Amino acid sequence: MEPVIFSPVGVVHSPHKELSGMPVQPPSAAGIIGEIEIFPEFSEGLKDIEGFSRLMIFYHLHKSAGPLLSATPFFDTVPHGVFASRIPRRPNPLGFSVVRLLSCDGTILKIADVDILDGTPVLDIKPYVPEFDAYPNESSGWFEGKLSGIETKRSDERFL
Amino acid sequence: MEPVIFSPVGVVHSPHKELSGMPVQPPSAAGIIGEIEIFPEFSEGLKDIEGFSRLMIFYHLHKSAGPLLSATPFFDTVPHGVFASRIPRRPNPLGFSVVRLLSCDGTILKIADVDILDGTPVLDIKPYVPEFDAYPNESSGWFEGKLSGIETKRSDERFL
Repeated sequence: MEPVIFSPVGVVHSPHKELSGMPVQPPSAAGIIGEIEIFPEFSEGLKDIEGFSRLMIFYHLHKSAGPLLSATPFFDTVPHGVFASRIPRRPNPLGFSVVRLLSCDGTILKIADVDILDGTPVLDIKPYVPEFDAYPNESSGWFEGKLSGIETKRSDERFL
Repeated sequence: MEPVIFSPVGVVHSPHKELSGMPVQPPSAAGIIGEIEIFPEFSEGLKDIEGFSRLMIFYHLHKSAGPLLSATPFFDTVPHGVFASRIPRRPNPLGFSVVRLLSCDGTILKIADVDILDGTPVLDIKPYVPEFDAYPNESSGWFEGKLSGIETKRSDERFL
């Protein structure tokens, strides 16, 4: 099948300047503020976005080292397959975070719960719609029992 | 910023052969069965995936016509920005569905609630982890009050 070529539509500004020591998921980043700057040619795409309280951000893990098919994630001590984990070294380095939307001012989205590296290229934004996206009672596989302390969980150097 | 090149890691097999008349979101596709065939070179990436009851599928909307910055979505009668909607004609045609995982047999994932076109290239799979991904109480913006009848909602020809 043919490769797919995506072009960034914006960029993330965040306090996270290094891959090590970062929050590993949005619940590890509660209250951490950042911005998404949408490039001016896409500004029309933001119409009515301020009605949503959360957004799904799809981005290029642009500092990811090459792919791994399995690895030991931050939340465990044994390896799991890349498609059964959220490790950043993926066959296609596509990042995904569900963040809070605080405001939209022109082409600047102010967001919270930001676990994304500063300078990250944004590929798409979709509004979080609980009817489509929220499934609170699903099983978390190997994550079960491993998420205590998530609020302060930080990345280490294992994927650099 | 530089373009990003992604290569498919698998392909979706589903009963949906045409873009028109399809379920528009997984809740419109409850019980509809399909498969994801992961290409053999990525099989190691599936290790431990069977512990999860839902997966997030990231895919190329490979039959999408060119991008629109705003359009009238299936769920409304007035236009909204592409980043405030789930319309398929996006600046980067990246699809996202949260589906049920029924089984994993070798490189074949049997899935349910499938709203994805047959033959769709899969770019990534991540396990759905409610602690990271489920926010049932968020506001749905312009979708509020527009989702009655979602169970049987089907696409029409507006985006062809």
